[in-house]
Order: sequence, then C-alpha cells, then structure tokens
Amino acid sequence: MIQQYYMPSKILMGEDCVQTNSEAFLKMGKKALIVTGEHSAKKNGSFDDIIKVLSSNGQTWALFDKIMSNPTIESVYEGAAIARSEQVDFIIAIGGGSPMDAAKAINLLACQDIPESELFRGQYTDEILPMVMVPTTAGTGSEVTPFAVLTDNRAQTKKSIASDILFAEIVILDAKYMDNLPKEITINTTIDALSHSIEGMLSLRANPITDSMALESIRRISKCFDSLKTGELTREQRFELLYASTLAGMVITNSRTTALHALGYPLTYFHNIDHGRANGLLLGEYLKYFGENWPERANEILSAMGFSKISDFIDLLDELFGEKEMLTDEQIEKYVSMASQSFNYKNSRVIPSKDDMIEILKTSLKKDK
Amino acid sequence: MIQQYYMPSKILMGEDCVQTNSEAFLKMGKKALIVTGEHSAKKNGSFDDIIKVLSSNGQTWALFDKIMSNPTIESVYEGAAIARSEQVDFIIAIGGGSPMDAAKAINLLACQDIPESELFRGQYTDEILPMVMVPTTAGTGSEVTPFAVLTDNRAQTKKSIASDILFAEIVILDAKYMDNLPKEITINTTIDALSHSIEGMLSLRANPITDSMALESIRRISKCFDSLKTGELTREQRFELLYASTLAGMVITNSRTTALHALGYPLTYFHNIDHGRANGLLLGEYLKYFGENWPERANEILSAMGFSKISDFIDLLDELFGEKEMLTDEQIEKYVSMASQSFNYKNSRVIPSKDDMIEILKTSLKKDK
Repeated sequence: MIQQYYMPSKILMGEDCVQTNSEAFLKMGKKALIVTGEHSAKKNGSFDDIIKVLSSNGQTWALFDKIMSNPTIESVYEGAAIARSEQVDFIIAIGGGSPMDAAKAINLLACQDIPESELFRGQYTDEILPMVMVPTTAGTGSEVTPFAVLTDNRAQTKKSIASDILFAEIVILDAKYMDNLPKEITINTTIDALSHSIEGMLSLRANPITDSMALESIRRISKCFDSLKTGELTREQRFELLYASTLAGMVITNSRTTALHALGYPLTYFHNIDHGRANGLLLGEYLKYFGENWPERANEILSAMGFSKISDFIDLLDELFGEKEMLTDEQIEKYVSMASQSFNYKNSRVIPSKDDMIEILKTSLKKDK
Repeated sequence: MIQQYYMPSKILMGEDCVQTNSEAFLKMGKKALIVTGEHSAKKNGSFDDIIKVLSSNGQTWALFDKIMSNPTIESVYEGAAIARSEQVDFIIAIGGGSPMDAAKAINLLACQDIPESELFRGQYTDEILPMVMVPTTAGTGSEVTPFAVLTDNRAQTKKSIASDILFAEIVILDAKYMDNLPKEITINTTIDALSHSIEGMLSLRANPITDSMALESIRRISKCFDSLKTGELTREQRFELLYASTLAGMVITNSRTTALHALGYPLTYFHNIDHGRANGLLLGEYLKYFGENWPERANEILSAMGFSKISDFIDLLDELFGEKEMLTDEQIEKYVSMASQSFNYKNSRVIPSKDDMIEILKTSLKKDK
C-alpha cells in the first residue's frame, strides 16, 4: 500500500497576511484571473485585500465571479475560456471549496486542451499556471489538496480531477475573513474538516505523518465544539478552525477520503444537502461502525475529541445538525449502490459491506421511523 | 514575524520502501553520486538496498564515502569535484545528518561556482540536481530541511547554508536500517529530534502548523523514553522515532532552531561532544528557563511528554546522558559570547540574556561544583 506524504504548497498565515506578503503576489506574474463566488468574497473583505495588493504591485486582473456551490463541468470550461482570452499569468481563488476546486479545473483547462470525456482520466501534461488559494471558510482543505471536485450532471454525482500539478504555489490563511460566517456554514464546514481528519485516520493510505496531522487537527476542532453550538466564535477560535481544516486538507491530500465521502455525494446531488452537512449526518454512525470493526483506531479518534464513548459524539452531531433529512429505503439502496462504484468507497482499512453502509444510512437518516 | 509553512519534498515510508519505490529512483536520472560515511550504510543494509535498485533500473553510480561526523567545508568541495567529474544526474545521501547535510552542499557546489568566502551568503541561482535522502538515524531531520550545516574551522563553529533549492526530491523512511543502532547513538539522535520539536515550539517563528507537528513528534518520542534507558527498541519503536524525527525536521525547516542549538555548537567544536548530546545536556535547564518566562508554552511541552514538572524531565535526561562533561567559567563565558553572535540565538519568543545563558550552562555542566 502506498505510504507517502507530499504537499508542496507554501502556506502563509496570520492576520493581514495578504498585506504582509505582497511580494509573494508580485512574483506570480503580471495579470491574474480571480475566481470566486458572486457575493461572499466581496462582503468579507478578502476580495478588497487582494485587489489592493495587486494594485499596489502594479498587477492587473480579470474577474470570474460566477462560481456556485458544487461547481459544474460547464462552469469551469466557461472560466477557462476567460483565462485564455484574458491571457492571465496566474490564478487567485477566493472562497470556500467551490471556487478553489473550480479554479484548479479552470487552470488545467486554460493550459491544456482536454475534452469533457477525458477530463477525469488523469492524463495531463505539466502545463499549468501558478495559483494562490485564499480560503474564506474553514472546512474543505481544498487550498492544500491537488483535487478539483466537480458536479457531473451526466453521472449524477461529484467527480474528482486529481493531479500533483494542481497544488497551489501559495496558500493564504487569514481567519478574519470568517468573522461573520453564519452559524450553519460554520458548523457544516467545521464538520467537513473533522470528517477529513477522521477519514484520513481510517484510510487504507493513512500513515504516521498524516495521522499526526489528523490527530492535532481533531484536537484543535474539538476545543471549539461548545462554541459551535452557539455559533459565537472568537477570532482566535476561527484561526484554530482554519489551521485545523488546512491540516485536515494535508491529511486527505495523502490519505484520500473514504466511503463516508462517497456516500455524502448523492445526498448533495439529489437532496441539495450541503457537503459538510451530508458528511456530518452520517459521521457518527460511520465512526461507530469502525468502533466495532477497528476499535483501537476509533478509540484513538474519540479520545482526541475528548469523548469516552461514541454516543457522546453522536449526541453532539445531533445537536449541531438539528432535524435531519429523511430518506426512503429505495433512496438508501440506490445511493449505497452508486457510492460503492467510487474510488474512495474501498479506501479504508476496514471496508464496510453494502449492507453495513445501508445500515449506517438507515440509522442516520431514518432514525425515528 | 514570518509565519509560514513549506516543505516540498515527497516522503516515501514504510518497511522496504526503497524496493517498493524503484520507479521513484528511475525518474531521477541515469547516474547517481552516492554520498555517505565510510562504514554504517554498508553495515545496516541501506547501501545494498540502494545499489540493487539502481542496478535493476539500469542506473549507474559514483561513490563518495568519505563523510565524517560534522563535515567540513573542505570535504564538500572535494565531493563536488567528484560530482562534476563523474557528471552525475542526481545525488543520493545515505546516513545521519552529516552525509545528508554534506550532500546538499556538494550538490550546490557541483552546480554553481561559489568561492568559500561566499558559501554562507545565500546568494545562489536555481541550479541544483535532484536528491534522494535516506536517513539511517532518527534525529537530525536533515532529510526534510533546506539546511546544510558545516564545520567552519576558521570561524571555530558550525555554519548553515540555507536555501529552498536544497530540499530533496524524495525522502526514504525505513527504520529497518536502525535495528542495530548502538544505545548511545540512539539516545543522542532521539534527543536531538526532541530538541528540534521543543525549540520549534519556543521559536519566534512557531506557528500552529509547526506546533501541531512538534506536539505529535514530542508525543511519539516520549512513548519511547523507557526503552531509551535500556537501549532495547523494537522495530515499531524505531519507526515511531523515525517519523517523529522527520516531523521535527519539518518543524525546524519553518521555525528554525533557537539559542540551545547556538550553544550546542561550541560544545561540539571544542569538546567533540556529539551534536545530539550537546543539545541534550542543556535541554532540561533550557526548558526550565522557559518554564519561568513563558510558562504556558513550557507546560504544553511538558504535558505532551507526559510530565507534570520540569524536574522529572531533567531527571530523565540525567539518566540518559550519565556523567556529564564539565566546563570552566572561562569556557562558559566564551561559548555564550560566541553563541550570542548567531542567528538562532535570537530566534525565540523569549530571548534569554547572556547571563541567563551562562546560568543555564553552569547549572547544566558545573552541577557538582
């Protein structure tokens, strides 16, 4: 089994680190394509900070701000056409996982002629533009991964482009952009990061380097559990969650995700459930399954969270996520069947059977029936 | 203050990972320069493993096996001349910190014309050969740092070449090469790694990413404290120490070391005390100083080691290192004065005064007087 660790991006961190690292931007080239969503980057101050630094550096930019949640294949081809026509030298992604994942795919398609049928095949050349990633949520870890997860409407699920050429040159971590993140988004993104670290530890590709990062990421997140319930987080806690989510990203870059992520995708695709919430709704029962089948590992994870038993973790998730979406038996069977086709379904040391997964889904999402 | 994390080398790990990653070697080029010491790599099996993989790949090699402990400037110019005359495509370092640090300097000097007077000035071009690092001790962390520490006889101390071009392409972590490492070397190297993680957490450049790695590195090392006393370590423990020392290397790559390392150098230079031992002799009193001046941080470190008070840690180090070398007052004043000129002397959040450092040295090395 592959045991490796690799993450070559440079991480710059701390309050106002865009301003204090203007030289890092200057080195990237003359003209940037800024890839972001329609609103949030403009509201939280990140867009302004970037624009100011580019201006003072004498750099120019084009803007592609049409990234929606769960970006589609169509949208990244559209962004790539703009990158080409604007002849940009580098790409800056600002936002959550969606703009960052989209930016990677846009970059690839701006530099290489790849038809849609070949997009996920992994046969790419080395041509790519340098990238800066500015996460404005603390969950996805996309800033330090070589993955671009896109929604494939034909396949009715999400699919990943994965290539080492997709690592960013520079990653900017400043939690001040998260000051006003609504409670629901904070919970969903935090639990997404938590699921990355937990799945990283359950992965077939887990190794002691990634485990070390995962454990510390879990500890940092767990210190904020109580504040997550109220949604009132200090700037310091926002930084803790941001560092934890980046560590979790460094974990899955090497460990990949597992069956949980495979199962979360259909919940997002068919029920429009936010990605972090989709994982979080299943995470408690999923870890419980590992508690029965790989108890040492599950206990290590629980203990890093400060819990002595799995039911405490399940209670926490229930409190954070409130009323759950409910699924029918037919839906559950369909989603497990779809998920079992994916790469990450088999990427854990103990692989749940289809029946195990059906049970996890039923217990999670048919609880009161 | 700079808050950044960067370590772009790819780490391949696990038992027999040289054999299972022969393709990674193949990609490096046709001919290697193997840089190592005279004996240990040939005894512990690492040299044979590498040679077999190169042979089966159809690659050739030249050998420079003259690296002594604390390599000199002269020796790396000699190695560079061989790299040039043999026209090698890449460099493989096998051994402890000395061969790995020497290999980085040899590589630099093989690719760039740098007179000795300019060697430590940091003005280098990008020309460099790809490198593979195969550590056969678990201490230095050199496999993941961009530093080459050399002995400068003119300056009567050690000096560092530091450049991002010195990161290896590939790092190989296989603890089987450490099976027969003598007790004394095991202790010295382990405590060297421990001091890297501890100093990393005390550094002015510490950040939550490096702290996360440092804390886990400290925890992994501490689990082996009892076995260090006997010198009987299992293969599993050897792996734990190797992963911990690599994590500690990833820490100091970004945090750098502090006054402790600055003070250790004259002990090595003038008294021929092994580098790890030199740090270890002072580490207890050094951490005690921080306990008085930055108690939250020192307590975090102690608690990661499983100690509730500093005296327990000092007792452990005393037991591991046995009878200590003794210094005169004149020597102590001279070494503190020399150390205070160095970069790392001022690289901690609380900077000990010269008098503080004299006190630390006296308490450590004049204990019974």
